[in-house]
Amino acid sequence: MWDDLAPIGRDAASGGYRRFAWTREDATLREWFAGEAAARGMAVVLDRAGNQWAWQGDPDVDGPGVVVGSHLDSVPDGGAYDGPLGVVSAFAALDTLAESSWRARRPLAVVNFGDEEGARFGVACAGSRVITGALAADRARGLRDAEGTAMADAAGRLATGFGRDDETLRRIGTFVELHVEQGRALVDQDAAIGVASAIRPHGRWRIELPGEANHAGTTALADRRDAVLSLAHVVLAARVAAERHGGVATVGRVTAQPNGVNAIASHVTASLDARAPKNAQVRAIVAELTDAVASQGGEVIEESWTDVTPFPAELAGRLATLLTAPVLDTGAGHDAGILAQAGVPAAMLFVRNPTGVSHSPAEHAERDDCLAGVAALADVVAELTR
Amino acid sequence: MWDDLAPIGRDAASGGYRRFAWTREDATLREWFAGEAAARGMAVVLDRAGNQWAWQGDPDVDGPGVVVGSHLDSVPDGGAYDGPLGVVSAFAALDTLAESSWRARRPLAVVNFGDEEGARFGVACAGSRVITGALAADRARGLRDAEGTAMADAAGRLATGFGRDDETLRRIGTFVELHVEQGRALVDQDAAIGVASAIRPHGRWRIELPGEANHAGTTALADRRDAVLSLAHVVLAARVAAERHGGVATVGRVTAQPNGVNAIASHVTASLDARAPKNAQVRAIVAELTDAVASQGGEVIEESWTDVTPFPAELAGRLATLLTAPVLDTGAGHDAGILAQAGVPAAMLFVRNPTGVSHSPAEHAERDDCLAGVAALADVVAELTR
Repeated sequence: MWDDLAPIGRDAASGGYRRFAWTREDATLREWFAGEAAARGMAVVLDRAGNQWAWQGDPDVDGPGVVVGSHLDSVPDGGAYDGPLGVVSAFAALDTLAESSWRARRPLAVVNFGDEEGARFGVACAGSRVITGALAADRARGLRDAEGTAMADAAGRLATGFGRDDETLRRIGTFVELHVEQGRALVDQDAAIGVASAIRPHGRWRIELPGEANHAGTTALADRRDAVLSLAHVVLAARVAAERHGGVATVGRVTAQPNGVNAIASHVTASLDARAPKNAQVRAIVAELTDAVASQGGEVIEESWTDVTPFPAELAGRLATLLTAPVLDTGAGHDAGILAQAGVPAAMLFVRNPTGVSHSPAEHAERDDCLAGVAALADVVAELTR
Repeated sequence: MWDDLAPIGRDAASGGYRRFAWTREDATLREWFAGEAAARGMAVVLDRAGNQWAWQGDPDVDGPGVVVGSHLDSVPDGGAYDGPLGVVSAFAALDTLAESSWRARRPLAVVNFGDEEGARFGVACAGSRVITGALAADRARGLRDAEGTAMADAAGRLATGFGRDDETLRRIGTFVELHVEQGRALVDQDAAIGVASAIRPHGRWRIELPGEANHAGTTALADRRDAVLSLAHVVLAARVAAERHGGVATVGRVTAQPNGVNAIASHVTASLDARAPKNAQVRAIVAELTDAVASQGGEVIEESWTDVTPFPAELAGRLATLLTAPVLDTGAGHDAGILAQAGVPAAMLFVRNPTGVSHSPAEHAERDDCLAGVAALADVVAELTR
């Protein structure tokens, strides 16, 4: 499975992946998912946000099932593991169980959530947010990518019935997402596998900074309203605020207008991603940044916000005991967190990442740790279907 | 003529012009130029950089002629006047003379220099630099636009024989370029028309700032190598250096990689445009900036450099006396400056700009001042062909 996925959406120059929602690459990944499901005799259904569910057994007849999986999309120039490791491990764990004496006594599913990274439309976990109602269908439909294409148009025929999907949620007894760790906590604890306790609060904001287009050679410094200069002040303010309040803040996307060598920038749009252990810390970072942006004549618009998300403690404890694995929180958002917020029993397993690097071609997990992840997920599925 | 040009390459949203070298818009502008020349019985020839010359009389038989004109390309979202005012005024001045009792006793030409703004390939005045040899043909051929297209490919068949063109230079007895002022000196001096004394030294540099792609939510501040944060330090350093050394410095173009909302930037490429009254001032600004970039692990690459360019003082004085016009220097580069550096007798007339704003849709000149420019240019041509 890993070899089949390796070339899809890989940029030859960077070695990173560019697998964005509702693109040709995304369609290829969905076909791969459908093929793996078919090979195992699993029936693929799409929910009202276009997420793919491969079912073994019928949850509408036999009651809610155990669902494993993750996502297949990537950030720009992302790594191979973030997302796909969870989907591949899900199929592999079911294969491991099928080859054993274990027999499923509840329905099982593997899920591929769409647009988890939000790389194209700016909202992370869009697929799970739409079906839980955390992202209103009208708002999701209107989200536009950098070329101005609305999600409703990009998603095509799936836009029919697009929105909250309680029928799909009712089919989930428990959801377990396996994911490569995006930090070095497991390295420090010398453990191949960990269990998630909570997802830290995080949000995304859009920063709009106005300037005035003018000639780079003839406009005195004092007469300038330079949006790139405003950006510089704001980026440094974000860093200072993150340090002060014990969180992280990242300006990762920058678009300057007109973006000419000899024209003063008339406008800059930038993104802010901010996270911290507690809600109040993130809010303090953003409040400070908002002041800095306002002093440059700009504004900060909230694009997404997710409260701190604790996973059900009893379930996490049960899995940690089963696997003899440490419990840790994470600064990254996940579909499992969105489902947990909606009241779905959800848990996560992390696989050790030797460098902690993620969202980069350098993202990695050792083969033995990946196999340990498959074995752990198989144990979890067996436990939850006992 | 103004009405014919108005819609070409105009962006409906910004109201600015996007007329870049060797694009469809550029081809339309060249067709317009050829049509205006044909309507006046002038023969259009292309030089070895693809610049258009509309001749009346034969400079190869009757000796070097008087050449007037400017350029038709624009910066991104540029104004209507920068360039086209000089070309339109050139044709209009010849029309004025043709309707008078004056008769040409020397060959005359109107020129349209290509790629003056350098908006596409990053080198200003590329058309005049190539024919004077100030820009080596091999280097020009290899310049690439944002999509990776080389100038040699963009220019197509014109790439044949591309390079220095002494035959074309020998045909120019005197070159006079009329241009909208890109500052407010004429407003301050209450004059509709001015004559150029010199072009201030200026250059362009490319700034490369490395970072390390990583997850925006899980990477501790201390572990980051964030290229956008490096950019912020560099932009502020450029501003401080420009203030300290009495010049201007502009970071107008910014490209971040991977430019994702939730990924720390792995690389930023930015442009620097720096100018000042004296060469040493610009060099001091760039030396300070280079230190700032080096301290971020990056490098600064010179893309173009133009020494201070005095226009021939006797010619400028003659025109100032003829027109009773003030003499002023300018921070903007022009093809007339490139020709002056190559030893071609060259002069410039400026037309008052009420706000001084340029390289912007707000760029403007009053109709009466434009007509005064045409009359002044006609007087200059009559004077130079006496």
